[in-house]
Amino acid sequence: MENSEKSFGGTIMGTDYAEGAHPDVLAALTRTNAESTPGYGSDIYCEKAQELIRSLCEAPGAAVYFFTGGTQVNAVTLGALLSSWQGVLAAGTAHISLHEAGAVENGGHKVIELPSYAGKLSPEEVRTYCSRYYGDETWEHIVMPGGIYLSQPTEYGTLYTLEELRTFRAVCDEFGLFLYVDGARLACALAAPENDVCLRDLAGLSDAFYIGGNKCGALFGEALVVPDPKRLPHFFSVMKQHGAVLAKGRLLGVQFLTLLQDGLYERIGKHAVGMADALRQGLDRIGAYQPIQSPTNQVFVKVSPGQYKALQARGLGGFWSHEEDESFIVRFVSSWATSLSDVETVLSVLSVKEDE
Amino acid sequence: MENSEKSFGGTIMGTDYAEGAHPDVLAALTRTNAESTPGYGSDIYCEKAQELIRSLCEAPGAAVYFFTGGTQVNAVTLGALLSSWQGVLAAGTAHISLHEAGAVENGGHKVIELPSYAGKLSPEEVRTYCSRYYGDETWEHIVMPGGIYLSQPTEYGTLYTLEELRTFRAVCDEFGLFLYVDGARLACALAAPENDVCLRDLAGLSDAFYIGGNKCGALFGEALVVPDPKRLPHFFSVMKQHGAVLAKGRLLGVQFLTLLQDGLYERIGKHAVGMADALRQGLDRIGAYQPIQSPTNQVFVKVSPGQYKALQARGLGGFWSHEEDESFIVRFVSSWATSLSDVETVLSVLSVKEDE
Amino acid sequence: MENSEKSFGGTIMGTDYAEGAHPDVLAALTRTNAESTPGYGSDIYCEKAQELIRSLCEAPGAAVYFFTGGTQVNAVTLGALLSSWQGVLAAGTAHISLHEAGAVENGGHKVIELPSYAGKLSPEEVRTYCSRYYGDETWEHIVMPGGIYLSQPTEYGTLYTLEELRTFRAVCDEFGLFLYVDGARLACALAAPENDVCLRDLAGLSDAFYIGGNKCGALFGEALVVPDPKRLPHFFSVMKQHGAVLAKGRLLGVQFLTLLQDGLYERIGKHAVGMADALRQGLDRIGAYQPIQSPTNQVFVKVSPGQYKALQARGLGGFWSHEEDESFIVRFVSSWATSLSDVETVLSVLSVKEDE
Amino acid sequence: MENSEKSFGGTIMGTDYAEGAHPDVLAALTRTNAESTPGYGSDIYCEKAQELIRSLCEAPGAAVYFFTGGTQVNAVTLGALLSSWQGVLAAGTAHISLHEAGAVENGGHKVIELPSYAGKLSPEEVRTYCSRYYGDETWEHIVMPGGIYLSQPTEYGTLYTLEELRTFRAVCDEFGLFLYVDGARLACALAAPENDVCLRDLAGLSDAFYIGGNKCGALFGEALVVPDPKRLPHFFSVMKQHGAVLAKGRLLGVQFLTLLQDGLYERIGKHAVGMADALRQGLDRIGAYQPIQSPTNQVFVKVSPGQYKALQARGLGGFWSHEEDESFIVRFVSSWATSLSDVETVLSVLSVKEDE
Repeated sequence: MENSEKSFGGTIMGTDYAEGAHPDVLAALTRTNAESTPGYGSDIYCEKAQELIRSLCEAPGAAVYFFTGGTQVNAVTLGALLSSWQGVLAAGTAHISLHEAGAVENGGHKVIELPSYAGKLSPEEVRTYCSRYYGDETWEHIVMPGGIYLSQPTEYGTLYTLEELRTFRAVCDEFGLFLYVDGARLACALAAPENDVCLRDLAGLSDAFYIGGNKCGALFGEALVVPDPKRLPHFFSVMKQHGAVLAKGRLLGVQFLTLLQDGLYERIGKHAVGMADALRQGLDRIGAYQPIQSPTNQVFVKVSPGQYKALQARGLGGFWSHEEDESFIVRFVSSWATSLSDVETVLSVLSVKEDE
Repeated sequence: MENSEKSFGGTIMGTDYAEGAHPDVLAALTRTNAESTPGYGSDIYCEKAQELIRSLCEAPGAAVYFFTGGTQVNAVTLGALLSSWQGVLAAGTAHISLHEAGAVENGGHKVIELPSYAGKLSPEEVRTYCSRYYGDETWEHIVMPGGIYLSQPTEYGTLYTLEELRTFRAVCDEFGLFLYVDGARLACALAAPENDVCLRDLAGLSDAFYIGGNKCGALFGEALVVPDPKRLPHFFSVMKQHGAVLAKGRLLGVQFLTLLQDGLYERIGKHAVGMADALRQGLDRIGAYQPIQSPTNQVFVKVSPGQYKALQARGLGGFWSHEEDESFIVRFVSSWATSLSDVETVLSVLSVKEDE
Repeated sequence: MENSEKSFGGTIMGTDYAEGAHPDVLAALTRTNAESTPGYGSDIYCEKAQELIRSLCEAPGAAVYFFTGGTQVNAVTLGALLSSWQGVLAAGTAHISLHEAGAVENGGHKVIELPSYAGKLSPEEVRTYCSRYYGDETWEHIVMPGGIYLSQPTEYGTLYTLEELRTFRAVCDEFGLFLYVDGARLACALAAPENDVCLRDLAGLSDAFYIGGNKCGALFGEALVVPDPKRLPHFFSVMKQHGAVLAKGRLLGVQFLTLLQDGLYERIGKHAVGMADALRQGLDRIGAYQPIQSPTNQVFVKVSPGQYKALQARGLGGFWSHEEDESFIVRFVSSWATSLSDVETVLSVLSVKEDE
Repeated sequence: MENSEKSFGGTIMGTDYAEGAHPDVLAALTRTNAESTPGYGSDIYCEKAQELIRSLCEAPGAAVYFFTGGTQVNAVTLGALLSSWQGVLAAGTAHISLHEAGAVENGGHKVIELPSYAGKLSPEEVRTYCSRYYGDETWEHIVMPGGIYLSQPTEYGTLYTLEELRTFRAVCDEFGLFLYVDGARLACALAAPENDVCLRDLAGLSDAFYIGGNKCGALFGEALVVPDPKRLPHFFSVMKQHGAVLAKGRLLGVQFLTLLQDGLYERIGKHAVGMADALRQGLDRIGAYQPIQSPTNQVFVKVSPGQYKALQARGLGGFWSHEEDESFIVRFVSSWATSLSDVETVLSVLSVKEDE
């Protein structure tokens, strides 16, 4: 089952970045539109959003940086965390391995791809790799592992437990690695019933992680949290030289302030996961096969060629992979904008018997 | 007189990116917010905006790409236009020389800084440099000039005439150079009474130029025009690997469609230049010294230390340079959001006699 | 069986770069030492060596460039052949994948690691990968395969047949890939009895390949052959900016002229392969297990911990891997400097019964 | 007077890298040729040469690394000393500014070119630049100065005094800069009568400098000295990923051991400077104009077009620049291989009256 992210154009549950912003976010941008503030993120909204994030993460000394997109925050941050002779360990199915057009390599670093299951890397694979590296007589000729990239949730919607993250942290400490967590869909991880990892845990265990906005209700934007700012010296200049500093930086501050105060971010996550759960239960009812049991906002279903065509015709979900038995895996992704009626539309199409 | 762009915090005429979007742009984003479209710019709004830009440029074969910021579009595009052994010729006062934190060099290319006057590079300087390069026996050991970076208007608000751009084009053709034009404040160039260069000219004479949005009424964004798309093969992937592809790409399409249809972009430019003209005339009336006579939306004034303090206290304009005679050069920048009342506030402060 | 190249210090058959130059090469450097020639490879010796290589390759239009080492020629050439959005396909066991400290990634490109057997990549793996890439809807988000890296012989001493190389060429033509062949130990490939690929074939089928000097009798140096020079424009400047142009460039010309005229290169290869064959036959006689049947100058033997210690103590061969059953794989490498007496010393140590 | 390094093909005093190695160096390579040693510089000769260099520099804790060329050592070392957001300050006439094909920029860093006189940078220029940088409100948007590049002797053969180097060190300490010294022709600096800077001074004042071999009697090679090795962590891997590790690393150890023990390096420098002095005195006698009074092994003379042709015809010296009055500046460079007879040949050609 190959990983392929782009919708075939499905406008219902095709992706979680098909609409604009959650209405509250847009309202905040509108409310503040006429105000005049200094540029490049040195404004009161960014300051307040940063303070709020530090508080939610219980990380009073953390630095917070705002970006416009996930590939950007991954590439710039990993590039800054890695020394020139280091690479980053990641699942072979990780977004940085597959779907960022080689952005990490473009910055000069190898993505060292390790085996994974359902999108998850295992601490044991990391330990095995690092032990071999440090035991190799030719280690100076080999790319040194500098850190670990995880995504929470993963590209398959699965989650790391707190226990697993603690084990990763221990492996990191053992081998001098940093731990970086990509939270593009973090709202859905936080909202999943089985999740036991909160913002404070991420701040306590990782060297950097980001709170996703693009796929979680923002118009655009991601918020990088760096618990120990000394890990990323002169990071504003580093961002600037990657074209990653927004002139009207306050737009990002306004958005994250809106998302993270008064629990909007949690409500968005809960709604999305609730819609995905409804779809998963419906699929179970009609006996559809779900190859991966994601607990977040992604749902994977095996469908016949006929069903696939029907979904395409209605713009429902998106292509994930074409299997050897000619069936397809389709992915449905829910968001703040998904409604129960969307779920029912999908189910009604998939309930139709093939031969009808 | 050194070039320094950041405001000292002036909220009135300190910069042209201090406010959000022109209300019409925000209205369009609000109107389309709930729509569901494919991601990464493959939506109908981007398509329409691209078509409109091609039409305004009378360049039916042009490719149009949307970016979130100026440093980003400069760095990614120049990096793609240059071969690895080439550098880009630019004024020593150019934005890429001074204020982009070395983004071009970060991408592996030398910015070859040439002498300039009031922000303008001269075709003769380029010709002299290239002649010397090609006449040098050691040319293979030297960075080859690959293209020219101009800004229209320049960082000092000055303009290239159509005649000058034609001469640059001729020099480019003579020495195999590309011509790239940074249009961060292009609306103000187009609106200046003395301007004789239109979009069609830029499309006809340059290999790539961008229509600035951030400083010209957009919430955010810049639109790159590439008259001959073959100059930038696989440019989507290049942008992606620089983190320069927006997930909700349509946000940029919606904005540029709004700005460029029905003449909004021109009106924004005219308003801004009008406000700057009003300030310039007022300054002339009160006998203030303007070291550079910019015809666009930037106004430079020499002020005494006392006046400088008074401006700072009121949040008017921004620091540009500190002169040897202890005076300051202050820069005022107008935008769609500047009012005549702002202009009068500035003039009233500068009209006060020092010894009063 | 993991790939690990460095000797544990074995001075007999530990590596093929343990000694200086073949005496004839050194004699030529001595003979020409006092001559005065222009620098950077623009001398008569480089010119003659280039002419000779063109002639041996039956490639009258080829460009030839000299480098000081294999990682250097690989990194600079692959970097120049690849467009910025492309990666290079290689066996996971390839030298560029494992033992060049991430040089290709340092230059901005992904090494796309494919499955391999005994060091050999298969054309089918490449075809499968490329078909999937071009069939993927998200291909623009993925690193485009730009070319194939092969080594002849491979890192395991195995060889590609002419038929296999022709199939690779066909796959390259089908998918717009270049074919690059690393010939670090090319003399031994050319000299292997089972080999059916000559210099002319390499020039006819690849876009670039190099004739190894460091491991084949030179004091130092590798000679890159580019059948169609237009593939690598301004390559002198590219080399220069990678610090890969030798001031006294003629040293490389003198060496390759000596190696390639009068059949010295072939004699060196034949001697080395002959010594490896003698070792292989001896190992068969004493019943040692050879996990890979390399036909060139590398010999792999499984040894017990006791035998391993004995080899270490005598400085024979080098560590390759430590197996799960506690045994070791040891690699022996022959060169122009290996003697039959060296081979016999190795065999005598491995003939000793464990319990003696 | 423009800087142009390549000879017009002069085989007498055209360059100092026109011949092979000093005979003693070649003899040492020949003597050790058949020995078998571990690769990549982990051999006894490299170890001894490193120990000797540490001793000569009175820097017992220094790390020493060997490279094959000057552009290579400059690019790799500066790239490793600089953080990604930093550039290096250098004279506009510096080798890294002009003649290394943009190698420093290719590694991602700006060469910040400062005014210079006769090849020399002044500490005051550095202080002025840094003061302005740290006083600029937009400093985060500007490339941070990370260190200073000097060459001793400079590209014009001039020298920094000990007092000047101490002032540079003080400026470095004031602004957090490193000091890097390019010693491509260091033997000639050390041998100049007016020189007061020894190896110990360079080790005491710089963060890294290199002892040139290519232009000072070696067959090839440069020796980088890093007084505090912590400045360049994992530098072997950094070198490897730039293709800068020689397989038969011992070749460099053997050469530097030979050059630096028993005073050979000093004798080579003294001979070269002596020959240049003889030429300078002869030129004074015949009334030739020397625009720069270099105290080392480079001699610059103004010649008429007729004299220029005569020099070309005889292969004497090399082109430096063509002046506005149609005259030429020719450069003569002496080395261990230059003889008094060479000097006299040059003088005899330049003594001929134009109208004869």
